This record gives sequence, C-alpha cells and structure tokens, in this order.
Amino acid sequence: MDNARQTRPPVVILARPQMGENIGAAARAMMNCGLSDLRLVAPRDGWPNAAALPMAAGGKPIIETAQVFDTVAAATADISFLAATSARRRDLAIRSLDPRGAAEMIVAHMAAAPDNPPNNSPDEQNRAALLFGPEASGLDNDEVVLADILVTASLNPAYPSLNLAQGVLLMAWEWRMAVLYAAGQNAEVPSVNVPSAGVPGDAAHRPGRASVAERDYFYKRLEMALDEGGFFTAPDMVATVKRNIRALFNRAAPSKQEISTLHGILQALTRNRKT
Amino acid sequence: MDNARQTRPPVVILARPQMGENIGAAARAMMNCGLSDLRLVAPRDGWPNAAALPMAAGGKPIIETAQVFDTVAAATADISFLAATSARRRDLAIRSLDPRGAAEMIVAHMAAAPDNPPNNSPDEQNRAALLFGPEASGLDNDEVVLADILVTASLNPAYPSLNLAQGVLLMAWEWRMAVLYAAGQNAEVPSVNVPSAGVPGDAAHRPGRASVAERDYFYKRLEMALDEGGFFTAPDMVATVKRNIRALFNRAAPSKQEISTLHGILQALTRNRKT
Repeated sequence: MDNARQTRPPVVILARPQMGENIGAAARAMMNCGLSDLRLVAPRDGWPNAAALPMAAGGKPIIETAQVFDTVAAATADISFLAATSARRRDLAIRSLDPRGAAEMIVAHMAAAPDNPPNNSPDEQNRAALLFGPEASGLDNDEVVLADILVTASLNPAYPSLNLAQGVLLMAWEWRMAVLYAAGQNAEVPSVNVPSAGVPGDAAHRPGRASVAERDYFYKRLEMALDEGGFFTAPDMVATVKRNIRALFNRAAPSKQEISTLHGILQALTRNRKT
Repeated sequence: MDNARQTRPPVVILARPQMGENIGAAARAMMNCGLSDLRLVAPRDGWPNAAALPMAAGGKPIIETAQVFDTVAAATADISFLAATSARRRDLAIRSLDPRGAAEMIVAHMAAAPDNPPNNSPDEQNRAALLFGPEASGLDNDEVVLADILVTASLNPAYPSLNLAQGVLLMAWEWRMAVLYAAGQNAEVPSVNVPSAGVPGDAAHRPGRASVAERDYFYKRLEMALDEGGFFTAPDMVATVKRNIRALFNRAAPSKQEISTLHGILQALTRNRKT
C-alpha cells in the first residue's frame, strides 16, 4: 500500500539509555503518536527492565517488542535516513534543523521511492530513524556523525535539557503533525468534528446556524423587552447600543437551537413583569 | 516593555493533579519552553509534594513558586483567555482547535493590547492560561465550559492519552514555536507586533476581554434569574442547559464592556418582576 509506506513512522533508537522509567515513558509517547519500532543500544540496566512497563501504560506492546543492539551502527543497519537529536549544536559539519524541519524531511524521505524497488517488500523501503543519546551526556560526536541531520530544538537557553521521553514525544509529535499536514489534514485521524470544529474563527461553516432573519427576529424581541425595561436611557445612543448588542450575539454565531434557547431565556427573564 | 508583553508566556493550571512526579515533570517541561507560572488546583497529595522536585530538575524555581487554589474558577480569576485541554472531544458547543492553532491564538491574544493600558503594569495585560485535568479522568465538563477554546491533539486513536507532563510539554512547545514563527524565527524576544498570528477577525485579537471570573459572575447571575423565572423545567437537564448557555456566550468572547452591558440587559429584563 502506497499510503502505508508514505506514512510509515520512523524508528526510535535510544543510545545507552539509563533509566527504565524513561524507556517506558518514551514507549508511551511513541504509542500516542503512532510510532511502534523501538530499538535500544546497550541499555545501562540491561533488558528487559522492570521499571519500564509501568511508565509505558498503553505503550506496553512497544516495550515488549523492543530490540536490543550493541552499537548505534548495528541498530541503524537498515536505516536509510538517520536524524540525531541533541540539546546543543555541535561543532560538526552536519546539517542542522529544528524538529519541525526535520519532521518534514523525514516524511519526504518516507514518501520517496527507494532506489531499486523490485517488489515493495518492507525490506526494500526507505526507513528513517530518530536517534537519542543517554540522559546525562547526550550522543557522542562519533554517533552524531553517523546521522544525515542533527535536530536541535530552540528551547529556553537557560535550561534546554529535555527529559529523554519528552524529547521522544516532541519529535514523534512533530512527525505526526508533518504527516497530517502533508495529507492536507485529512490523514487517518481527521482533526475536525463536533459542532464548532473547523477553522478557528470560522463559525460560518457550522451546521444548523440560525438564518439572518431568525437572528433578527430575536434581536427585535430583545430590543422591545429592553425598551420596556427602561434599558435605553440616552436617546442618541440607542442605535449604537443596539448594534453593539447584535454584534456581540452575532460573534457567537448562534445555531437555530440556540436562538430558540435565547427566546426561552428572554421569556423566562421577563415573566411576571408588572406591565 | 512592549516586547515582554507580546511574548508573555501562558500560565499553566493543573486541575486536581494526582502524582507529584507529574507536577515536577510538568515544571521541567515549562522551564524548557520558557513558561514560568504554575498553578495547582486542589492537588491530591497536598502541597508542597516531595515527589515533585526530583522530576523538576532545572524547573525547580517553578515548583518553588507554584501557587495553590481551591477551584479552577479561583485559579483563573485574572485570566482573560483560557484554553482547556482534553484527550477527547466533548459534546459541548465550544470552539475546538488542535494544539498548533490554539498556540497561535494564544500568541495573538497576548499581543493584543487591552482597552485602557494606562501604565502597562502586568495587571493591565491580557493573560492566557492552559488548563489540564487530572491524570485519570481529565477535566469535568463544568471546567471545560469555563474556557474559551478546547484543545485536542490528533493523536493515535488507539491510545491518545498523553501523560500529564507530556501534555504540558506539547502545549508549551507549540506556544514557543508559535512565538518564534510569529517573530520570523529569529527571536528570543520578537520585535514589534505579531501581525501574522491568528486568524483575521478572530476574537482573541480583541482588546479588553472579560476575565474568566467576570464571565462566571455574569453567568451565575443569569442562571439565578432564569431559575426565578422558571426557565429550568427538566431537573436532569439543568447542568447541560447551563453549560450550553455558557458555551454560547463564551463563543462571543465578550469584552469587559460587553459583560457590563449584559449585566444591564439582565437588570432591565428582570426589572419590575413580581417576586
């Protein structure tokens, strides 16, 4: 399936991770964003690690299928595009991008056909990976130079060091958004739904909106009731105040149902008036 | 300073957080992204919580200055633009955005000048906040309807539930990127104006918006008057109907002036009621 290939998620490689909790939390973040292939290079406390599973929550299947390698080179043997992550820029002649740019590049790489696609089996496909270093020190420069690009986020210079699982989430999220945006926002999970969904500020597209005439009828009833209640005290301001009230309600873009609710409100508030 | 005002980061409000570790990790994520104001509503295990500090790492100052409130309403008294976060969409007529759209709207809101900025003191400024619910259950619908917008990320439908601190990171990161992009990517402190952020005609641009507390006070008065007028006929629907009314008015994003007008309308309509 072309679509599947085009959105095939990147592999996540954790080099020499220290805390099992972080491995678990990273798996959860991967699951949240639809990534599934986790590889561990020489985890400090061995593998499996009992501390990982509780933090993984719904990412449990990712923990259970994680593969272990001795070196980053071995873990990347089948990877055709490697993005190394770092909290700091390196004095290396490697192309450096922010997470958003890196995610777009990964999506583009996955979508590109491999050089020699004899049968489209998974082994023949382009495969991208995100490489993360150990919590305390980050990646060695020798590991960074294996990569095609270096990803560095523009974080608070006073404290740019992300927790390992937070770094995984950030990249996994940016990959997911890049896929959704590349697909015109209507890839596997369309983000639109509910009554008010759609473009921000675009209430006009909501279904069941009251017509201009229906709104106008409510406004006239409201204005009459306000007049009876002595609301309009300054005659020369009446027209302006009426316009302001209409503008306020119009901004809410009430539905037919809501206009009917507003009529009910008006009736309840003016009930039992001494006239 | 104008610049400072334009990039003032949103407040983070954690409603009824359960795990101290998550509060600490949330503070670290805030520090990574340059946010600083953390508010806790009724934390389950009290406050301070010894479990928070180790996970906070460089976010320690945020933990130390975190404020505690009894209710979400109290924590949002000075907030003029509230974004509630949820892993699931709600059956509420509230404007729903993805994290990226929400971040742009927050940046635009911060950039908008208030109506009468006599001395630019922090109290006169627009203030946005991100609201997160408890780990297990998320926000109540009654908390969601306090907000201007609902933020829902398009995550893996098979497991969309983010860890609390991961949710904070995701929103903090998107806010930071929105600021950097709005400033042409080259700013810790962006230059004048943030013209491109947000959507034309969007309510978040308008100055002098009513605070959440000001809106809440009006809604309570309205609900009381409706109750006296016999508006609520079906007892089991009262909560839903109240939420729908709040959502309708919230969509209009009333200014302070307009809330005052609405009070006047309420008074005029209920005047001379036979009680």
